[in-house]
Amino acid sequence: MSNGDIFIGEVIGTAILILFGAGVCAAVTLKHSKAKASGWVVIAFGWGFGVLAGAYTAAPLSGGHLNPAVTIGIAVDTGKWDKVWVYLLGQMVGAMLGAVLAYLVYLAQFNANVGSGEDSAEDGPTPTLGIFSTIPEIRNVVSNLITEIIATIGLVLPILAFGLTKGLGESGTQVLIVALLVVGIGLSLGGPTGYAINPARDLGPRIVHQFLPIPNKGTSDWGYALVPVVGPLIGGALAGVIYNAAF
Amino acid sequence: MSNGDIFIGEVIGTAILILFGAGVCAAVTLKHSKAKASGWVVIAFGWGFGVLAGAYTAAPLSGGHLNPAVTIGIAVDTGKWDKVWVYLLGQMVGAMLGAVLAYLVYLAQFNANVGSGEDSAEDGPTPTLGIFSTIPEIRNVVSNLITEIIATIGLVLPILAFGLTKGLGESGTQVLIVALLVVGIGLSLGGPTGYAINPARDLGPRIVHQFLPIPNKGTSDWGYALVPVVGPLIGGALAGVIYNAAF
Amino acid sequence: MSNGDIFIGEVIGTAILILFGAGVCAAVTLKHSKAKASGWVVIAFGWGFGVLAGAYTAAPLSGGHLNPAVTIGIAVDTGKWDKVWVYLLGQMVGAMLGAVLAYLVYLAQFNANVGSGEDSAEDGPTPTLGIFSTIPEIRNVVSNLITEIIATIGLVLPILAFGLTKGLGESGTQVLIVALLVVGIGLSLGGPTGYAINPARDLGPRIVHQFLPIPNKGTSDWGYALVPVVGPLIGGALAGVIYNAAF
Amino acid sequence: MSNGDIFIGEVIGTAILILFGAGVCAAVTLKHSKAKASGWVVIAFGWGFGVLAGAYTAAPLSGGHLNPAVTIGIAVDTGKWDKVWVYLLGQMVGAMLGAVLAYLVYLAQFNANVGSGEDSAEDGPTPTLGIFSTIPEIRNVVSNLITEIIATIGLVLPILAFGLTKGLGESGTQVLIVALLVVGIGLSLGGPTGYAINPARDLGPRIVHQFLPIPNKGTSDWGYALVPVVGPLIGGALAGVIYNAAF
Repeated sequence: MSNGDIFIGEVIGTAILILFGAGVCAAVTLKHSKAKASGWVVIAFGWGFGVLAGAYTAAPLSGGHLNPAVTIGIAVDTGKWDKVWVYLLGQMVGAMLGAVLAYLVYLAQFNANVGSGEDSAEDGPTPTLGIFSTIPEIRNVVSNLITEIIATIGLVLPILAFGLTKGLGESGTQVLIVALLVVGIGLSLGGPTGYAINPARDLGPRIVHQFLPIPNKGTSDWGYALVPVVGPLIGGALAGVIYNAAF
Repeated sequence: MSNGDIFIGEVIGTAILILFGAGVCAAVTLKHSKAKASGWVVIAFGWGFGVLAGAYTAAPLSGGHLNPAVTIGIAVDTGKWDKVWVYLLGQMVGAMLGAVLAYLVYLAQFNANVGSGEDSAEDGPTPTLGIFSTIPEIRNVVSNLITEIIATIGLVLPILAFGLTKGLGESGTQVLIVALLVVGIGLSLGGPTGYAINPARDLGPRIVHQFLPIPNKGTSDWGYALVPVVGPLIGGALAGVIYNAAF
Repeated sequence: MSNGDIFIGEVIGTAILILFGAGVCAAVTLKHSKAKASGWVVIAFGWGFGVLAGAYTAAPLSGGHLNPAVTIGIAVDTGKWDKVWVYLLGQMVGAMLGAVLAYLVYLAQFNANVGSGEDSAEDGPTPTLGIFSTIPEIRNVVSNLITEIIATIGLVLPILAFGLTKGLGESGTQVLIVALLVVGIGLSLGGPTGYAINPARDLGPRIVHQFLPIPNKGTSDWGYALVPVVGPLIGGALAGVIYNAAF
Repeated sequence: MSNGDIFIGEVIGTAILILFGAGVCAAVTLKHSKAKASGWVVIAFGWGFGVLAGAYTAAPLSGGHLNPAVTIGIAVDTGKWDKVWVYLLGQMVGAMLGAVLAYLVYLAQFNANVGSGEDSAEDGPTPTLGIFSTIPEIRNVVSNLITEIIATIGLVLPILAFGLTKGLGESGTQVLIVALLVVGIGLSLGGPTGYAINPARDLGPRIVHQFLPIPNKGTSDWGYALVPVVGPLIGGALAGVIYNAAF
């Protein structure tokens, strides 16, 4: 794969991932959305099927990593680091592009976020950062890092092992399995921090949130921004180490 | 594929799609339905599995487009336009047929839509257009068009790329992936407009709604009817352009 | 396939189907169940994954019809009727066996169905027929028949067509698709009558309900029992006719 | 497969299974979790996708049993018992490891389990055993055993039969089917006892619960601990017997 193909694949694939992922958070969070308050199961399946859409689309070009933690895990496993920067660059650009696309899909909803909801119990504007980036339920750097590290190992270690399963790669079902794996991580391990498990997924949309002209958008919370970058990078690297040792 | 096979395949497949899709909207919307108020996750999976049922059924005859935006996206990509009219004709006929079938499945519920529900808080008749066609939460032509265009790109670009993924077509799982992709679009991008992403899916049932003898059916809202036709057509064509440029 | 294998396969497969299907209805309906009131999405996925479990188990022995409407649809299509009685016999025995198994799984819950629930708003005993067999929301023989006929066509026509899709049979994913199709039928077309779409699924458990010693079990409603038998048989036969004409 | 590979595979796979499974129970149960009270469908899919993640990861090393009932069922079927102890040892170690990992993921939530929730209606500490091990809704040893036996047959008999389905193993989709089967068992048969269907899944985390320093953790309920061990073992063995007789 050429650097150009890798870059384009990761940009398109990550953009689709974040379009779906930020999209489902907007769908459940914002007033005047048909999916308002439809619950955690919708969040988890929305993100998982975003992986499905993005990774299948990117697969022919770049293999569809869409996540620096996956790229790092594979690099630790294989020892090949020369293409890593292309993947990471594409992932960051794609994540920012996807966040802008999700914003455009929910443009009318964002512009109506002025506290004039007809439901008096929800009459204030809705904070919007949670649509773009993760926010922990209990803010504790050590606990939050542990959560992100373990959840990312739960993502990357299976991905590395899936490549060994007979027939999985050849039959094209590998990405489907990964997508359902991501649904499972959301359902099971997303409760404490909202499961970044992907530095680009969190940092790219946070940058976009900082600059978008959203009414009443609230803080971009840069004080937490390092945790969902560092935790998944450590988790991805640990997954590569465990995989090399065990398999 | 002969024109006859294409036409019959698209009629049957699109009819099944709309039977399931309008069906699930009736199931969640109408009084005296066991699925009343069962939420957005039911809507999204119902439409997605409608794609599953319709596209697998139509696949041996027509390839199972079921959607003018898909047909246009493929035509823009391949440059072959001579069969497009057959696909579109079949899709429109099928969409109208499917809407009639969904109406017949929920006939007793539609006929009971006279405001005599036992629940006093819901005692008026239920508007019925939302069962057949899409209605935006916030009516804004530009925003609604943007939503439909981006959501349709999110459908058609992955479909075009899936054809490249090794083994996906041969193993027969491609339609399953597309069905789950449609679930994902519903969950993530359906909040603002109800995700037409398919001109036939919206226009065909709207025509049927205009003529069916449903008690208290409310408006067929022709003022909005162009948006869910034009938006998806633009989105499908753009997906073909992006695909040609990037892959 | 020998008659013995077909019979055993259909008994085991249909028993598993009804164990899961009646089980999920008990799970959602009965007091003192962890899944109490968990909604229509649980019902639909429970029945669909019951098809998954039963049909994959039966497949090596009988092909896994589990449903007289499927058997009739295939017979109409192929013209081969000599094994039909073996399938139907196995399906009826299996459906009754499965209903007994589901009763045993929820034995403590059925025995506690005496109106002593701690929730005063639900203090009466729960009617139990809906766990075993279907009950229409609006009782209207013509409408109920139409619903069951169309929903069964929506099941059997795709099943017949799936066999034509390249690679679907060979890759073993055909049953998975049928299972998700059944989830879709539940979500979309189950609202009016509870989607029997299978005469054995409704009649077998109804017979069992008549004889089981369940406290406060309520009526077995034999006045409705013909509709979910006749409707699906007509639907299955029509699907065979449509398939022969169109494909 | 060497004993070492089997042991490592079962440890890693079962640890991932319990990480996801105990994780989803924590997600739905604990205060300050984003998935709080998100319902039974989340529980069932979380456990099922835990099987997906764990079994695909373990498959290349050990085949991915992750469950003594599966191992016993296969041994009864094949008559080969010499590796059984390695599987069981790995499963128990993995289940305990996974419970510790789930505890670490929800560390801040467990530490905040001191009755200071802002919601006054839930102001007491939450009992925590249900996150680790199963608790019956109605405590009745005979009924609870019957439930676990039948539910485990519903798991192991299909798993044994799946191996016969043409192409299922070769295409790598077998584990996906098993994962969805486990979702189905949860939805349909989990209501009375919380579906252990796996002795290691229940006993390993119960031991861990006994020793972890969780505030207000409540009882580890050793009086019930034999039922979810003995029931699944009987069910797994019976499934092997039925499979040998019928197939």
